[in-house]
Amino acid sequence: MRGLLVVVSGPSGAGKGTVCQALCRRLGNIHLSVSATTRPPRAGEEDGVHYFFVNNEKFQEMIAQDELLEWARVYRDYYGTPRGPVTRMLESGRDVILEIDVQGALQVKGKVPEAVLVFLRPPSMEELERRLRLRGTDSEERIAKRLEWARNELEAMAKYDYVVVNDRVEEAVVKVEAIIRAEKSRSSYLSGPRT
Amino acid sequence: MRGLLVVVSGPSGAGKGTVCQALCRRLGNIHLSVSATTRPPRAGEEDGVHYFFVNNEKFQEMIAQDELLEWARVYRDYYGTPRGPVTRMLESGRDVILEIDVQGALQVKGKVPEAVLVFLRPPSMEELERRLRLRGTDSEERIAKRLEWARNELEAMAKYDYVVVNDRVEEAVVKVEAIIRAEKSRSSYLSGPRT
Repeated sequence: MRGLLVVVSGPSGAGKGTVCQALCRRLGNIHLSVSATTRPPRAGEEDGVHYFFVNNEKFQEMIAQDELLEWARVYRDYYGTPRGPVTRMLESGRDVILEIDVQGALQVKGKVPEAVLVFLRPPSMEELERRLRLRGTDSEERIAKRLEWARNELEAMAKYDYVVVNDRVEEAVVKVEAIIRAEKSRSSYLSGPRT
Repeated sequence: MRGLLVVVSGPSGAGKGTVCQALCRRLGNIHLSVSATTRPPRAGEEDGVHYFFVNNEKFQEMIAQDELLEWARVYRDYYGTPRGPVTRMLESGRDVILEIDVQGALQVKGKVPEAVLVFLRPPSMEELERRLRLRGTDSEERIAKRLEWARNELEAMAKYDYVVVNDRVEEAVVKVEAIIRAEKSRSSYLSGPRT
């Protein structure tokens, strides 16, 4: 049986990273896809583990050769999901999680209609702002931009299959786990992939 | 928040009754809808608990007044789901399970598009036959008819949202529970009922 492609998306600060990591610990057969990016590594980030760090030229080549399942420009940096590794994992029967932003999620749904889209939302804009400051990686100007983006991204929610409020991480993880289990009983999943 | 309408359906002998009862024990806020029927009570069945036992005239009146969410004639008996109690429970925020046959399930989907249809299937036709004999309530002729029906009903599976194989009851119950939890995170459910 082919694996399930799960996209966990939502505004920056919604807690995508925390939820996805907890999911991978709880579920055995799931693999977190590694994105490619042109942005420089943050402290502690390893190439091939957190991201594939590539230069701008390489990234443009990947776009041109349709090697990306989705890609987006965020500020001056590019982010994308290499298609090959994802396809190979799904075909070997493993589930794959993509932890990506809203632009990317909708691209994936366009290219892979059977992908399951989960929108992770912060309980409120106030809580989102608090989390972004707590993270301490962004300037005030960037935080303001992220909040403006988040407001736009909340409007994209209706295009997602599922919406999970990330108030308490453990509860959000249990909900996404139930979504993954349920999707494996979908008649459309059981009758085989359309792509 | 309005409750969720879950239809658990499948061939006679698939284990609908056992799975639905176990679900109601596990989940607090779910209520098993009581059907109306014209068939005589079996030993131990109570009016208003297992079924509303009504005569043929009363049943025809309920059909005429559109008081049934679905109804079907099985052999010479009528079965149906009174609409009023279901609507009231959903509006009060409780989830409702309908344990009904395939004909009825597809009618419900037609009338209530947001209903979640779960097809419970036996692991094999051989196992189904074994279960029907074990139950000891049907004649040989009726068992043969039920098996013929079951073959037709398996073809209806693709029209369901979910398919759960009832091999081991506990596993089937866990799967249906995940389906119910997941459906509560559906963006279409969260954005409100269409009816």
